[in-house]
Amino acid sequence: MLLKSQVKYIQSLGQKKFRDADGVFVAEGPKIVGELLQSDNCRLVQCFATGDWLSMHEEVLKNRQHLVIKTEDQDLERISFLSTPNQVLAVFTKPVFNKIQKPGGLTLMLDTIQDPGNLGTIVRTADWFGVRRIVCSMDTADVFNPKVVQSAMGSLIRVELIYTGLEQYIVANPGTPVYASSLDGEDLHQNLRITRMFLLMGNESKGISPELELLATKRIRIPRTGGAESLNVAVATGILLSRIETDP
Amino acid sequence: MLLKSQVKYIQSLGQKKFRDADGVFVAEGPKIVGELLQSDNCRLVQCFATGDWLSMHEEVLKNRQHLVIKTEDQDLERISFLSTPNQVLAVFTKPVFNKIQKPGGLTLMLDTIQDPGNLGTIVRTADWFGVRRIVCSMDTADVFNPKVVQSAMGSLIRVELIYTGLEQYIVANPGTPVYASSLDGEDLHQNLRITRMFLLMGNESKGISPELELLATKRIRIPRTGGAESLNVAVATGILLSRIETDP
Repeated sequence: MLLKSQVKYIQSLGQKKFRDADGVFVAEGPKIVGELLQSDNCRLVQCFATGDWLSMHEEVLKNRQHLVIKTEDQDLERISFLSTPNQVLAVFTKPVFNKIQKPGGLTLMLDTIQDPGNLGTIVRTADWFGVRRIVCSMDTADVFNPKVVQSAMGSLIRVELIYTGLEQYIVANPGTPVYASSLDGEDLHQNLRITRMFLLMGNESKGISPELELLATKRIRIPRTGGAESLNVAVATGILLSRIETDP
Repeated sequence: MLLKSQVKYIQSLGQKKFRDADGVFVAEGPKIVGELLQSDNCRLVQCFATGDWLSMHEEVLKNRQHLVIKTEDQDLERISFLSTPNQVLAVFTKPVFNKIQKPGGLTLMLDTIQDPGNLGTIVRTADWFGVRRIVCSMDTADVFNPKVVQSAMGSLIRVELIYTGLEQYIVANPGTPVYASSLDGEDLHQNLRITRMFLLMGNESKGISPELELLATKRIRIPRTGGAESLNVAVATGILLSRIETDP
């Protein structure tokens, strides 16, 4: 039986201020937790898991048994952020990225992405295409929100998210072309080959803010042949990333 | 004040059996309801809306005032399927598609897509790329589930979804190549040009069932340059649709 204080602590980590205070986040389910346990990039703080799951993970946890709390299903339900808890919930320190590592040819920029599921899917998609850095406006959802963690899967230990003012970031990096995804943009019929670029994606309903759009070198659009007014932002990000080739 | 029976009826439409019994579905929010009201493809059955919304939509509702019920915000909350109700909720008859219309060169096939948000995003994405027909396995989420309607937006009146056994459908259409999206498939480095095809996408965690994969003419994969194990199925669908050119 979990202590009330333990339940309260985990629940508090649903809020950004408490995650930030301790520099930690929550991950759930065998797939994500399994991947994070193998990573050098984040450290296990505490692990709540069913006996079944623990017996299958003795090896990976062997020097970390003091961080493990065997938990019954009904207790997992009390601390889980999922509608259906799934064997294991773990608290990890936020990943640390090597600052010296160059961010690669394409930097993704997100202006006010508010839906956690969209943000997580974007992180996962960026990871698939080898994007190592995403620069987010301050009002973009927090990548350590449990829903984002869930849809980003293990990708959040490989892709670095930076929260800052996008205008300042662009201005501080002169010479890097800014390609803005826009429904009024030029149709991208051919794949794009470019050494270095910022790819700017906008809010789910409002798109890119007018001030930012002024800083765009070019506005591009995925050619449309059907009737939908727009694409989901994570889908649009995936299509553009698959059609842009930059230096690795 | 809504009658208890009205609230009960709308709530019942959250379940497939009640939607099927009456041949109707629920749409919410000014954007989707506005688009559906303009369509010849589905008929308004009942509309619950705030006074503000109604005063801006007198014209489009002018011959349908008898179907409109002015509703206070707190009553909208009682019938809404959204966490934040949004001005209007309407019941429509399911769209009717012209059976004579040819489905076009590419038919999308979905094997056991279970997440309503994913299905809705796939429908919206298919619509963007002019796909007119999606053939779904019987255990794929229902397109008239309120969450699917919400993420499909207006696209569900332009894209026809058919629920049937996929193996039988493929066998009944010999000569149409079946391209299966698979993590073990051949990397799709070039865009694909083909007159006619089935594009088969699999379940979020299990992929395409082994029996179906046996029927595939070819297995294809989106080239990966980064670390993620897989892509979200709606993102993968969007990328593949953007890279395949068929006859319109």
